[in-house]
Amino acid sequence: MKVAVLGVGLIGGSIGMAARQRFGAAVVGFDPDAGTAAEAEAAGAVDAAAKSVEAACGDADVVFCAAPVGALVDLVPAALAAAGDDAVVTDVGSTKREIVTALASEERFIGGHPLAGAETAGLAGARSELFDGARWYLTPTERSSGLLYDRLQRLVAGLGARPEAIDADAHDRLMARISHLPHVFANALVEGADADDARVPEAGPSLRDATRVAGANPAIWADIYASNREALAESIDEAIARLEAAAKLIRSGDMEALGDWQAQAGESRRALLETSAGAGPLRELRVLMPNRPGSMAELALALGRAGVNIEDMALHPAQDMSSGAVTLWIAGDDAADRAAELARELGHIVTAEH
Amino acid sequence: MKVAVLGVGLIGGSIGMAARQRFGAAVVGFDPDAGTAAEAEAAGAVDAAAKSVEAACGDADVVFCAAPVGALVDLVPAALAAAGDDAVVTDVGSTKREIVTALASEERFIGGHPLAGAETAGLAGARSELFDGARWYLTPTERSSGLLYDRLQRLVAGLGARPEAIDADAHDRLMARISHLPHVFANALVEGADADDARVPEAGPSLRDATRVAGANPAIWADIYASNREALAESIDEAIARLEAAAKLIRSGDMEALGDWQAQAGESRRALLETSAGAGPLRELRVLMPNRPGSMAELALALGRAGVNIEDMALHPAQDMSSGAVTLWIAGDDAADRAAELARELGHIVTAEH
Repeated sequence: MKVAVLGVGLIGGSIGMAARQRFGAAVVGFDPDAGTAAEAEAAGAVDAAAKSVEAACGDADVVFCAAPVGALVDLVPAALAAAGDDAVVTDVGSTKREIVTALASEERFIGGHPLAGAETAGLAGARSELFDGARWYLTPTERSSGLLYDRLQRLVAGLGARPEAIDADAHDRLMARISHLPHVFANALVEGADADDARVPEAGPSLRDATRVAGANPAIWADIYASNREALAESIDEAIARLEAAAKLIRSGDMEALGDWQAQAGESRRALLETSAGAGPLRELRVLMPNRPGSMAELALALGRAGVNIEDMALHPAQDMSSGAVTLWIAGDDAADRAAELARELGHIVTAEH
Repeated sequence: MKVAVLGVGLIGGSIGMAARQRFGAAVVGFDPDAGTAAEAEAAGAVDAAAKSVEAACGDADVVFCAAPVGALVDLVPAALAAAGDDAVVTDVGSTKREIVTALASEERFIGGHPLAGAETAGLAGARSELFDGARWYLTPTERSSGLLYDRLQRLVAGLGARPEAIDADAHDRLMARISHLPHVFANALVEGADADDARVPEAGPSLRDATRVAGANPAIWADIYASNREALAESIDEAIARLEAAAKLIRSGDMEALGDWQAQAGESRRALLETSAGAGPLRELRVLMPNRPGSMAELALALGRAGVNIEDMALHPAQDMSSGAVTLWIAGDDAADRAAELARELGHIVTAEH
């Protein structure tokens, strides 16, 4: 397996280390900063530092574009131009709709987003275990090659992550709610706290915690806000509606309703923290499906929408390539039953459910 | 010094321990739960457990009502009825306007609110150093006795806290912004995150941090929301206006303006975390003022509004009680100069500025 990593900061460097150490991949790294590329080689993050995107991608099986969101719009097309016809090109950007829409006709591009590390951190923090247990979203489309998706998701799993397919729009709406909106809220809180007197330094832990991410790296976050502007602005609108309802409830002074509201928020918080991992022993499903672009993405997305996590998968094309089988490993009986049901609803045959 | 503590949970118990250990006060404790009162005695939080509010307050110099906000509306009047004519009665509730307004004619009541601990925690966490370095707001009014205010603020300082006078309305608006609004935001975030799918357990650290206080103790928080409903609802309205502006900015996709907004939030966050403590060596100011109710409160409030912290103070009434002098200790030259200026603006004579 030959892997190219474009951008060897925290995420790119960690991809290189994990790929080299865990399955002996040959990793070539490129970085716009030649010094950083050399450091990555010295640190064992890559086998060799390339002098250009073209040199890095030439004979790669998988290309990771590990640059901030704002740089991907140029970097990914360059990688696609440089990579071979049967290479898969992915990225690690925090928003997906913009880049996926721009490259909708490219069957070799599958967007990605690991929920680990940060685009802003440097190579010094890179480590092979960065992705262990972390969700890694992949955004295949109906044009995506099933074979390339399979290769990419197995590689991501091999890095220690838990890959999950998700529609790019759904991804961005999800990130708006669970990541970008908290940043906007943090900004709005510090703006208000800062407004009018010298006493605010006495702020207690609730404000400190709630504003931890306020004003995080402006260059990076301007990119994220702009590239996810539709979903994020909608999330803000929805949040405003909830705050208006809260203000109305608080003005009413209705103690019982206030207590119920608070209790419900506590329930939601507990639900939020319950992890979906460790749901039970792995079950194995064999699914027969037509070997056409999109069928793998369709199944993976259906499972993703249902909250069923694919812990691992393997694709077995038939000799004549007219059909194929995919083996899925799903944690927990309920999730596995649901996955089998969804596959059957899509018209596939499920032959083995251990 | 005889101290009564009504309610011996975390805060009441810690007051008792600190008062006993640090200046040998005789502490009597009352708790509606007789078992808790006995535990407080066994733990050394009080010298003796009283069987009633009346028994606890009878000959106390200072009475601390250390109960949740919802219980204070009954407890404080009971304490005032039981306490002597020259006792000062205070509370530790998180909101102040409601109770201070209700008792506006009582010169013996001075509201209080230490920014330490939580009303919900029990005696087991009580410790004499709970208040060390913590802000402790006091809300004297024009009816408050200067002598009683002086006694209370010195006692609070003796517990290790940093007393600061603040108008009850200003206190509640401040708490709305720095404590209650973050709780409302946390609730609004978990409500949104919980809304529509099973993926949210993958929530990253920004959402976890931002929602840490979501759904905190419903009984306590329904009280706080209700008792601070005006100021809190106004804070929510203001926050909504900021979020509307943020949504508009994000929809514009204006990268430069987004970067500026993010950078400004970062500045606000840094300002928020700069502590006002350690501003310089203590300076001593002697202020001559008429010995009438309200003059001490007026000065303390003026300093509080200007962000000048009184690290310590001592009151020296003239023999004929027609006038008095107060010595103030202020940290830092700038703050001390400002305090002297404010005292002069109020018509007082400032005789010593070391």
